[in-house]
Amino acid sequence: MVRDVEGTKRKIVDAATAEFVAHGPDGTTIERIANRAGVNKERVYNYYGGKPQLFAVVLQEQFATTADAVPLEAEDAAAVGEFAGRLYDYSRERPEFVRLLMWEALSYSGEVPDEAQRRETYLARTAAIEAGQSSGGVTSALAPDVLHLVVLAIAAYWTVLPQVARMVTGTTADDPDGVRQHRAAVVAAARRLADPA
Amino acid sequence: MVRDVEGTKRKIVDAATAEFVAHGPDGTTIERIANRAGVNKERVYNYYGGKPQLFAVVLQEQFATTADAVPLEAEDAAAVGEFAGRLYDYSRERPEFVRLLMWEALSYSGEVPDEAQRRETYLARTAAIEAGQSSGGVTSALAPDVLHLVVLAIAAYWTVLPQVARMVTGTTADDPDGVRQHRAAVVAAARRLADPA
Repeated sequence: MVRDVEGTKRKIVDAATAEFVAHGPDGTTIERIANRAGVNKERVYNYYGGKPQLFAVVLQEQFATTADAVPLEAEDAAAVGEFAGRLYDYSRERPEFVRLLMWEALSYSGEVPDEAQRRETYLARTAAIEAGQSSGGVTSALAPDVLHLVVLAIAAYWTVLPQVARMVTGTTADDPDGVRQHRAAVVAAARRLADPA
Repeated sequence: MVRDVEGTKRKIVDAATAEFVAHGPDGTTIERIANRAGVNKERVYNYYGGKPQLFAVVLQEQFATTADAVPLEAEDAAAVGEFAGRLYDYSRERPEFVRLLMWEALSYSGEVPDEAQRRETYLARTAAIEAGQSSGGVTSALAPDVLHLVVLAIAAYWTVLPQVARMVTGTTADDPDGVRQHRAAVVAAARRLADPA
């Protein structure tokens, strides 16, 4: 019988993703992850070292997937609005990355896994805003990194603290009308913020 | 010896606040809370029922304290900017409420403790934005509840996901320069969003 190492590793990462998204790094164990993956606990340790390393692998994968799925476009204010809308959609449909970021924020006080590498990705995305500012399509009233961060906040907040969004707006993302309203709000706010007029 | 019931209850709520802020409702126990408060476990059950009830008490207290400490003022765009700045300051200096909201979001999928009462408070605060819109001091381009929520997002995001703020902006709230820059960014973004021009 041929050992399917890559298939086993995939099962482990999928199981770890589900556990970490639901319970955070402190709320789960390698044993639970191994059980969910249907593999031996020692296998997980052999492949990944331990829980912190496995959390870093899961987070890095979700980070890369999210960044690839929602490229930052900012040639003008309308593009920034649409970017925010697509990020809202993605965060709502696939809240895994946002939840991992929340667990990370609650668990780490200092540097986070892959901080330097993730920062490079954010910098490259900020550069798209800078280009939009240089060409006059996007306001220069806010520094490009500030505009970048604030747009992330506007798009993600509904998934990060959905109970606050529900209490403030009286609408939820549990029905299509609520989703449409939330998305329109995100697009309008981000576009307004980026408007060069 | 007179039993100081109020003093004991205060000790329990303070201990519960510290435990819930650090570890969330799933990450702590009544036993740990009782130990931290220096009281008998049964005392906690007698006074508060159980962990969900105690979490609701802690959250409600922090919610009310935060709302009182940072009233929403919105007579014009500058006031909205300053409100956002004060909320940023408060969240940074006293992150307890923000962290409790994060634990709440990660733990609850449906209705949250005191949802109806908290919603009333949010509605009253949205009314301040509506008044600013009626008088022309604040833009009417965004619905008042949307503007309210987006300003909360802009002000709180730096405390909710500080690692993202650090990676995107290259500055941290661990030093006074970073704090000044973050605060100025929050004020400028919220003001810009509320500007009626």
